[in-house]
Amino acid sequence: MKGKLMNRRDFMKTCAMSASALAGSAFVAERTSAAESQRPNIVLIVADDHGREALGCYGNSVIKTPNIDALAAEGVRFTNAFCTTASCSASRSVILSGMYNHANGQYGHQHSYHHFISFENVKSLPVLLSEAGYRTARIGKYHVAPESVYKFDTLLPGGGRSPVQMAQNCRDFIRGDKPFFLYFCMDDPHRSGDADVAQELPGKPNRFGNKADGAYPGIEEISYDPKDVSVPSFLPDIPECRAELAQYYQAVSRVDQGVGRLLDVLKEADKYENTLIIYISDNGVAFPGAKTTLYEPGMRLPCIVKRPRGKNKGITCDALINWADLTPTILDFAGATPNENTLQGRSFKPVLEQEHPKGWDEVYASHTFHEITMYYPMRVVHQRRYKLIWNIAHGLDYPFASDLWAASTWQATIKNNRKYYGKRTVEAYLHRPKFELYDLENDPDEIKNLAGDPKHQEILDDLKAKLKAFQKRTNDPWILKWDYE
Amino acid sequence: MKGKLMNRRDFMKTCAMSASALAGSAFVAERTSAAESQRPNIVLIVADDHGREALGCYGNSVIKTPNIDALAAEGVRFTNAFCTTASCSASRSVILSGMYNHANGQYGHQHSYHHFISFENVKSLPVLLSEAGYRTARIGKYHVAPESVYKFDTLLPGGGRSPVQMAQNCRDFIRGDKPFFLYFCMDDPHRSGDADVAQELPGKPNRFGNKADGAYPGIEEISYDPKDVSVPSFLPDIPECRAELAQYYQAVSRVDQGVGRLLDVLKEADKYENTLIIYISDNGVAFPGAKTTLYEPGMRLPCIVKRPRGKNKGITCDALINWADLTPTILDFAGATPNENTLQGRSFKPVLEQEHPKGWDEVYASHTFHEITMYYPMRVVHQRRYKLIWNIAHGLDYPFASDLWAASTWQATIKNNRKYYGKRTVEAYLHRPKFELYDLENDPDEIKNLAGDPKHQEILDDLKAKLKAFQKRTNDPWILKWDYE
Repeated sequence: MKGKLMNRRDFMKTCAMSASALAGSAFVAERTSAAESQRPNIVLIVADDHGREALGCYGNSVIKTPNIDALAAEGVRFTNAFCTTASCSASRSVILSGMYNHANGQYGHQHSYHHFISFENVKSLPVLLSEAGYRTARIGKYHVAPESVYKFDTLLPGGGRSPVQMAQNCRDFIRGDKPFFLYFCMDDPHRSGDADVAQELPGKPNRFGNKADGAYPGIEEISYDPKDVSVPSFLPDIPECRAELAQYYQAVSRVDQGVGRLLDVLKEADKYENTLIIYISDNGVAFPGAKTTLYEPGMRLPCIVKRPRGKNKGITCDALINWADLTPTILDFAGATPNENTLQGRSFKPVLEQEHPKGWDEVYASHTFHEITMYYPMRVVHQRRYKLIWNIAHGLDYPFASDLWAASTWQATIKNNRKYYGKRTVEAYLHRPKFELYDLENDPDEIKNLAGDPKHQEILDDLKAKLKAFQKRTNDPWILKWDYE
Repeated sequence: MKGKLMNRRDFMKTCAMSASALAGSAFVAERTSAAESQRPNIVLIVADDHGREALGCYGNSVIKTPNIDALAAEGVRFTNAFCTTASCSASRSVILSGMYNHANGQYGHQHSYHHFISFENVKSLPVLLSEAGYRTARIGKYHVAPESVYKFDTLLPGGGRSPVQMAQNCRDFIRGDKPFFLYFCMDDPHRSGDADVAQELPGKPNRFGNKADGAYPGIEEISYDPKDVSVPSFLPDIPECRAELAQYYQAVSRVDQGVGRLLDVLKEADKYENTLIIYISDNGVAFPGAKTTLYEPGMRLPCIVKRPRGKNKGITCDALINWADLTPTILDFAGATPNENTLQGRSFKPVLEQEHPKGWDEVYASHTFHEITMYYPMRVVHQRRYKLIWNIAHGLDYPFASDLWAASTWQATIKNNRKYYGKRTVEAYLHRPKFELYDLENDPDEIKNLAGDPKHQEILDDLKAKLKAFQKRTNDPWILKWDYE
């Protein structure tokens, strides 16, 4: 309109545009203190390799996780929550970007020679929240790159296996004025280095970070008797496995105490009530059969959400959600959903208090690498009852992460030439067909592949078409394998 | 020695240390103009997908490459020069780092969603030369990352399919005072986009960048009759292939004219004599059977070296060298070999004027990805007569680059259900065994795999051991596949 007088219509249009621009960028403007105090704080707690099988509130009566159980009693416990890739780095990139990792570029591990990094143009959760006026801090495990993409304002000290100390270290940050986002990532209950084996114990289990003597600061170490642990159906009930599960349980109890201390810190600062608290794990437990696989133990995970100022307590929600939904959900709570929405998940905030919400009956998963040497792309569509896995590189032996290969549970299996590993044969675990179709209602252990069954041909075709459409929608480079392989 | 009087011994030691430090960092100090004028300029010319089969000086009597042939007549022509990986990005990273790409992190393509980048701590050729006082410039294709690792002082404009114009654009840079390093990379004779097909010609060949009408600036386009081209034994003698070879030849003749103009620019600036000029290609020609494979047509490449102030002319050298040797050789010429030498190749400067130098009878190659979706790690040891290929992911179909898959030469092969592609069966090309052992003296086309032959068991074992030792020496992550797969 340069050089012209603005007529009434243009003027109104301009006003409308400005108003809409103002609304869109409201979070960068000054807020009233009343509005500011309404915005919830956000705490996202991510455990490392914590499966659903090791939590009281998910039905394990042996393990002691009173603090996480209490959080579940105050909030919503999801019964069908899934990671999209069962590998630490990759999964964390999904959690923090709201994009499948085939689309954000973090195809596998970030550290050492694996060296995967996300695309520079990815707009991550902490950056969006920071732009929306949140103070952002992270503590503990990071495992994504580049830092410019996954940028937090503050890096709090602490980490490792001392989650109680980590929680202590968050106190000053939590007490600040503006609303905050705290990304709280423990190293527990990850396995420790291959060499860290309790040689003195029967079964020679990996220690899962447990000290040979003494305890981590602030932790009351809880040890478990291998006789008492509950062996899930995907693992073999052999002494080596029980010994490792006992170690794993001990590491989980450390996680629980860290969560407990963190909740106390929030309460002491009078921030608990107005804080959205989410507890999840990056992927399933670090045993062959779970982590790195997209079988249920690898991808179906704990997810507990305590709403800010939530009224209904102790709900379970059976919506199928996945980790690509976390960023959209958190942004929704923060009122910070970007105008140009490139997020690939969707907010489950609207259905949080419904036990059986409609329209939440399908999730997808996409795993490509763990270590750089472990190329094994899989794509999954999961519809509650039926689940299809496409093993794109099915010609390869199923690859092993070094720590899973070294696990005494696995070594005992192959050294003794055992035919079965859990309910699956070792042969079936190592050599997989192109398609695996399971009826989870009748076959929750995913043993009977229906992909070749003529009676399930229609379902197979339908799920294949859905998978392809998903890949197209989410810019999956591996979509070309439908044509080339 | 703080707080102490320095005694004579310490004083002498300090002097010696300083002298040695001075010598070590001599290149950063001021030089006498006489010494400066002795230091050679360096021009490294890299063509894109130019195989040995399409050069006059390597025995092709049809193609017109007078300028490159003239360069060979002035210098040394290598008859056993090899890339280490037959893929653009990865190979260029080896050329510029002196490290195998499994060690520098550039495991595959850099661009788009492939997104591989080298490790931040790699010290590259241009950086080392810049530190040594060289002016450094690049023009044309780059295809490596991050820029901080492969840093040139100057980026000259130009590129694409206009190598003559590229050469023109280097004039001012070449005329400067200090010694220089020019990295000159043409887009020719790479295929053009899959859709750029000469539909009007018999056989519908890809155009290899050739214009449907007219010529690139400064180029006299030379077209070839498909009847006249020489079909190498790894390609099928079918009309579609001849049509594509004719297009390829035309693109090579553009390369040749660019080289010719560049040599003229050097001569006009009176810099030709004191310049080290190297002509190579990143990998073999863009046809299935060459590029992306480690068969001879993919990895055995043109390499012509004109020494600065060289006396012996028109030599051939049969040393086995590879692209990891280029950076050490160039640094050797520049007197800039770093004290902490992490280079994995070795300088061939000392044997440049020998036709049959001793101790140059073994090279290695290491290819892992081309596109991110094309995982197919191969490791090769080549001993002139015997060559071992380890196909680490041999359970997979051999993957295709999108442009090689679309090539009319390949499409005609599979659509007509032809059994053979060149001398190899299509089946053998697509499905490869774990080990391929060839006797190149008796089987230059690599058809008869001796890996299962008891008479060659000892050779096989010896070469396997060498391969493993090479992987250990060069920090190859895929070494673990000896144990896990």
